[in-house]
Amino acid sequence: MFITFEGPEGSGKSTQIALLQEFLTEQGYTIQVTREPGGTRISEQIRDVLHDMSNRELTPRTEILLFSAARAQHCDERIRPALVRGEVVLCDRFFDSTYAYQGYGHRLDLAILKSITRFATDSLTPDLTLYIDVPAEEGIRRKQADKGLEWNRMDDYALEFHQRVEAGYRALIADEPQRWAVVDGARSIEAVWLDIRGIVMARLDRH
Amino acid sequence: MFITFEGPEGSGKSTQIALLQEFLTEQGYTIQVTREPGGTRISEQIRDVLHDMSNRELTPRTEILLFSAARAQHCDERIRPALVRGEVVLCDRFFDSTYAYQGYGHRLDLAILKSITRFATDSLTPDLTLYIDVPAEEGIRRKQADKGLEWNRMDDYALEFHQRVEAGYRALIADEPQRWAVVDGARSIEAVWLDIRGIVMARLDRH
Repeated sequence: MFITFEGPEGSGKSTQIALLQEFLTEQGYTIQVTREPGGTRISEQIRDVLHDMSNRELTPRTEILLFSAARAQHCDERIRPALVRGEVVLCDRFFDSTYAYQGYGHRLDLAILKSITRFATDSLTPDLTLYIDVPAEEGIRRKQADKGLEWNRMDDYALEFHQRVEAGYRALIADEPQRWAVVDGARSIEAVWLDIRGIVMARLDRH
Repeated sequence: MFITFEGPEGSGKSTQIALLQEFLTEQGYTIQVTREPGGTRISEQIRDVLHDMSNRELTPRTEILLFSAARAQHCDERIRPALVRGEVVLCDRFFDSTYAYQGYGHRLDLAILKSITRFATDSLTPDLTLYIDVPAEEGIRRKQADKGLEWNRMDDYALEFHQRVEAGYRALIADEPQRWAVVDGARSIEAVWLDIRGIVMARLDRH
């Protein structure tokens, strides 16, 4: 079973993935925890190009193609083989992040993004995608609390961008409601975790 | 004007590009000589991932997407700005190599390769593509002469592959005869160069 996690930065995805990994391991499942971009040696090399702060001239189309290249390698070398062995794969972000951030956030053509993604993944799709729902305003607020910064023009831009991303996630969820489960992330770690545990166990039973 | 060079390894592309660069510079043109994959700092970083000999597990789809990412950056950062400044760009391999080697050679779906390429290049197309025509058998023979090796099973495979690539180039030329010019590469450097000079000068006059 292939489970992906989506949601804004600071929504607590990695905390919840760690809790789920521990719980499922106790239940006797073999778990692979991975993330995008990354997850294989080659994908990490590509991640380095993407995250190299000196690469300011990187264009949006190059970025998409690098994310997709890392994803192709990740699917073929790591995710698909683990699924074939009957393991549970937990992945921090997958193609929905591309659609939400590059498609809706940066307004790149969603049809071509989907066609490149189908090629990159060879049509591999998550069995379940957990959306940890934290409103854009709350995400920005959490970031500011972290850094102790005041509101500035960049945050206005950031808020508008993150509102487009959030609306994008809502559209993706509405398109494929059977694949997604939405969890209210504006609560305690424990409350969010109980929801996630319930959803995942119900799906694993059916699986 | 954007001129690309295609043909098998050992067909003498780089020699001819150097001769053309020298000649056109003497004629007063400003020339950019570049190559794929590469041509910008970021594209060279991507080229390093592609050419890292330890990356044996690199899959064909990852390879395509990395070539396309390097191409997107190359088009936006280097080729298009040079064309806007009125310069002549000479490029050693461009998207036709992807179609010939990955599409026809490795039998990847040509329609999806073309759609990824249109995205990567933002539809930038060469004004003229010179095909230096050296038969597949001759290409293999030249390589063997270089290395002094005997024929082996890999060469049988290689010959079959390069025959598919050659047939692919013929199909691409048949599809867009107005963009291509075919030069017989099985002659002296001087004879090939005289052909190329004539073809390029005629196109530049019309341009």
